[in-house]
Amino acid sequence: MSVITVGTMAFDAIETPFGKTDKIVGGSATYVAYAASHLTRPLQQISIVGNDFPKEEMDELKRRGVQLAGVEVVPDKKSFFWSGKYHMDMNSRDTLVTDLNVLADFNPKVPDTYQGADYLMLGNLMPSLQLSVIEQLKIRPKLIMLDTMNFWMETAMDDLKKVLKKVDVLTINDSEARQLSGEFSLVRAAHDILRMGPKYLIVKKGEHGALLFSRNDVFFAPALPLEDVFDPTGAGDTFAGGCIGYLAHVGKTDFEAMKTAIIYGSALASFCVEKFGTQRLKEITQKDIHNRLKKFVQLVNFDIKL
Amino acid sequence: MSVITVGTMAFDAIETPFGKTDKIVGGSATYVAYAASHLTRPLQQISIVGNDFPKEEMDELKRRGVQLAGVEVVPDKKSFFWSGKYHMDMNSRDTLVTDLNVLADFNPKVPDTYQGADYLMLGNLMPSLQLSVIEQLKIRPKLIMLDTMNFWMETAMDDLKKVLKKVDVLTINDSEARQLSGEFSLVRAAHDILRMGPKYLIVKKGEHGALLFSRNDVFFAPALPLEDVFDPTGAGDTFAGGCIGYLAHVGKTDFEAMKTAIIYGSALASFCVEKFGTQRLKEITQKDIHNRLKKFVQLVNFDIKL
Repeated sequence: MSVITVGTMAFDAIETPFGKTDKIVGGSATYVAYAASHLTRPLQQISIVGNDFPKEEMDELKRRGVQLAGVEVVPDKKSFFWSGKYHMDMNSRDTLVTDLNVLADFNPKVPDTYQGADYLMLGNLMPSLQLSVIEQLKIRPKLIMLDTMNFWMETAMDDLKKVLKKVDVLTINDSEARQLSGEFSLVRAAHDILRMGPKYLIVKKGEHGALLFSRNDVFFAPALPLEDVFDPTGAGDTFAGGCIGYLAHVGKTDFEAMKTAIIYGSALASFCVEKFGTQRLKEITQKDIHNRLKKFVQLVNFDIKL
Repeated sequence: MSVITVGTMAFDAIETPFGKTDKIVGGSATYVAYAASHLTRPLQQISIVGNDFPKEEMDELKRRGVQLAGVEVVPDKKSFFWSGKYHMDMNSRDTLVTDLNVLADFNPKVPDTYQGADYLMLGNLMPSLQLSVIEQLKIRPKLIMLDTMNFWMETAMDDLKKVLKKVDVLTINDSEARQLSGEFSLVRAAHDILRMGPKYLIVKKGEHGALLFSRNDVFFAPALPLEDVFDPTGAGDTFAGGCIGYLAHVGKTDFEAMKTAIIYGSALASFCVEKFGTQRLKEITQKDIHNRLKKFVQLVNFDIKL
């Protein structure tokens, strides 16, 4: 089934304890698309880029079933650029540069050809823009997933609360769940947040895995213990892309499907961090994904007589 | 099967964001015994207490199948006392008072009646004392589990490395695994540590669960997401007690049994933190444990077609 993804297509320059890149292609919608393209088609991208975004990257995305009618190309401006440096623990990072460039004028438009999409992934963006995409859709998708961050909680909480009322799944990290709810306990935080609108809350804990909450259930997906995390950039977006890609693949939205979706998301994210940028997401095959999923089964599978 | 437990029986005074206790009964061997007593008998305690350790506590332990022939009572001294204050995140704490008292003279002696024990749990103690217990045993137990901490890595690394050569399972937390190995990646740390002697390494990550490593396998057990962690004191010892109690119950030591043992340990630890001290470990029934184990199954169980 079809998935609309809204988010950035951009450049990143990344420094980690293991190495350093010049400007490479990144952006939330880019990671979501590469991840989801392993699981479902078509993917319908809504984003904005400048005159510097590589044509080869666009072609590569198209080859993977990604439609680009909703990607605005601004001829006289540059693409969004972010530069950051990760600390040794890879969970914290310093932003070195944020050049909004085209992103300052982003006003997402849903092309007619995208109308009727089954799934909607709203990448981390200003909440009013996320809301505007939902309002442009003539038929409500089966499932709307939203990613956001602490910055919007601090600067646009009212708009964020408005859009939360209209989505099915919220993905945030543990400190953001605490910030949004004002509760330290993640269980209490989840109950609060689920009262704000979403049916499901996914709390991402990086190397410590992810928790899925519904009103009555909770599920835990571990992160695969890796020898090295080379570059965590895009891991959260890849996780979201794997989740929504799996859901679109099976056409479901129930809790059981959500559980499996999170395992797919975790599996794809575990590839993402193995090299800089989107490289691993482009290299991996269906067989690689299959084998990685097997590792997740082995990682948590135990025998108990009850 | 029988389990020898070596460790402290002591008093704690605890302050958490949720409340405060006066001196209550604690100590690593106490927690191990209460946890393991739900799963196997007899438990054979080796410890040291002063004249102030409550007779009712000794009687309660005896009722639960805990033998006390190896507990030295020093008539003119006081029991070990620790006082600490937890921060909001419950993962970090400040030690306020450490009164060694009888512990300064602890020289564990294995009573003849304990000889031939099947399992040995060496609670966190000076490594030379842990080694002395192993050397006193005429028949090597089927499995020796050892707990230790950063303090001994800083002050007695040589002795610690000696005892590590003689044990089957090491339980430490994630920062201790990094410290012991000098590796930041837990996977690399585990490979290093397994070369020091143990067949299995359990890395405890508190609210983030626990990882079990063998030379070829890895298993992850989540922590149950709780509304409130009331008092984490003793959770690690309870976890160890649940592990070794389960192993003694089934009489096994293979990787499959270790996996289930860790789930039992996690389940018992999830009770421990619900109230101050050992209270919950005394209250819970077989039915409570059974229901809690079911929650662990639900927490990680997913359906995937591979």
